[in-house]
Amino acid sequence: MGRVTERRKVLRIRDGAVSSRPDTLVAEEPLEIRLNGRPLAVTMRTPGDDFALAVGFLVSEGVLATASDLQNIVYCAGATGEGGSNTYNVVDVRTSPDVVVPDITLERNVYTTSSCGLCGKASLDAVRTTTRHPLADTPPLRLTPELLAGLPDRLRAAQRVFDRTGGLHAAALFDEDGELLDVREDVGRHNAVDKVVGRALQGGGLPLSRAVLLVSGRASFELAQKAVMAGVPVLAAVSAPSSLAVDLAVETGLTLVGFLRGGSMNVYAGEDRIALRAAAARD
Amino acid sequence: MGRVTERRKVLRIRDGAVSSRPDTLVAEEPLEIRLNGRPLAVTMRTPGDDFALAVGFLVSEGVLATASDLQNIVYCAGATGEGGSNTYNVVDVRTSPDVVVPDITLERNVYTTSSCGLCGKASLDAVRTTTRHPLADTPPLRLTPELLAGLPDRLRAAQRVFDRTGGLHAAALFDEDGELLDVREDVGRHNAVDKVVGRALQGGGLPLSRAVLLVSGRASFELAQKAVMAGVPVLAAVSAPSSLAVDLAVETGLTLVGFLRGGSMNVYAGEDRIALRAAAARD
Repeated sequence: MGRVTERRKVLRIRDGAVSSRPDTLVAEEPLEIRLNGRPLAVTMRTPGDDFALAVGFLVSEGVLATASDLQNIVYCAGATGEGGSNTYNVVDVRTSPDVVVPDITLERNVYTTSSCGLCGKASLDAVRTTTRHPLADTPPLRLTPELLAGLPDRLRAAQRVFDRTGGLHAAALFDEDGELLDVREDVGRHNAVDKVVGRALQGGGLPLSRAVLLVSGRASFELAQKAVMAGVPVLAAVSAPSSLAVDLAVETGLTLVGFLRGGSMNVYAGEDRIALRAAAARD
Repeated sequence: MGRVTERRKVLRIRDGAVSSRPDTLVAEEPLEIRLNGRPLAVTMRTPGDDFALAVGFLVSEGVLATASDLQNIVYCAGATGEGGSNTYNVVDVRTSPDVVVPDITLERNVYTTSSCGLCGKASLDAVRTTTRHPLADTPPLRLTPELLAGLPDRLRAAQRVFDRTGGLHAAALFDEDGELLDVREDVGRHNAVDKVVGRALQGGGLPLSRAVLLVSGRASFELAQKAVMAGVPVLAAVSAPSSLAVDLAVETGLTLVGFLRGGSMNVYAGEDRIALRAAAARD
């Protein structure tokens, strides 16, 4: 984890005063993800939890769904940089023999090369038909607004690097009592989510059918997709959701909470998991 | 531009009080970008300026560098959704006959399949060797800290959608006198930059050798790459840069300013373009 931050010289200008000093920055480096030896993707990430990042990425892509799908992960042994040492920037994920690996090519991400009719609906359908963890929390989760309102403070208390660099996104998993299960940080918000999902799979914890996923920023379609693919029933974001994230939540039964800050929140989908009794009485 | 925002019902919870009302969300839909008829990428974007987005994306990818490289752009005529109407979510970019289109495949983005030694250095080298607009502002730009400090307010004043949804990233171009040249918003920060760069190319304005690019969030490697590929000499961000963004700026001569807010800023690279005389006198 020594590369989570890096030091660089910076010229600080404050109300006309200039000073030169070292500054702590969030580290960003490329990670190449290989699947059974074949190069699949390169993501710019903050080093650390690389195996979990690769695994979580493959959960989102529909390749992995449970720990038994995974045979092993290694850093590419020949991945050496200029000095001849391993760069630790290339990981190879091997799937179990019985896993049918979908044909993941660039074209695979082009949802409708045949019909040519690309629309948000096609994106929603792709997630719904791909996931191996349809949302099914039994008994249904019931979370009070007070519990949800307390989560951002718990996330911030658990963040180790954010205060020093200001450059990290965070993703955290909580249980239904609001206890922190895991938190990861990364220069990319999607990477932070992949890391917590990947760690959950590695620990045998998928689907995350009784967990709340909290993200430090906005809730895009991509993040809602990652929650759904991991079987997470509640996604909460400190900032705004997009229209397509809301549509995906409605379609899959995901509870989507946005603008979760200072005791307030907006619930965009899946209101049945919010225990409104005490609150509604005052309405 | 009618689809920049969409309305959804939301349950608002404020200090125990619950109300249901319509809310304005930033629109997010997939856009498929085709190059000479061949599917190349799908990006989740806010509809609007789709041609510019596709063009700017191809500038970053090293396919287009000037207006003469571009033959035309069309929405795919057969791109019809469920109701049979055009979804306007598939665009095809045709390059001029003399443009040599690089072999853009997924593997192209995997920088080192042969040597296996992926590292940040390889990413820096890829940008430096690909760009057709090496930074060369002659005479060199000289910007005062006061001018830079005023840019975020000008950006916010020009943003039309942000205040309503809280879900949009913005990218703006300014000239060396601090006058706003263009501003675009998108659910994805990279899309917002692609849109301003694409519009500049369409208007014959590339390379943007005397412009300042301001982004509303953080400065990642990807955004620094987009600035360099468009020939922009100064990239300013309201929030933090990453280590690799700073490294790319140092290597290419890009001026990189971060934490530009409230009259203060950090200069991470290219200090020679900052006119420090008056400020330094007080140091």
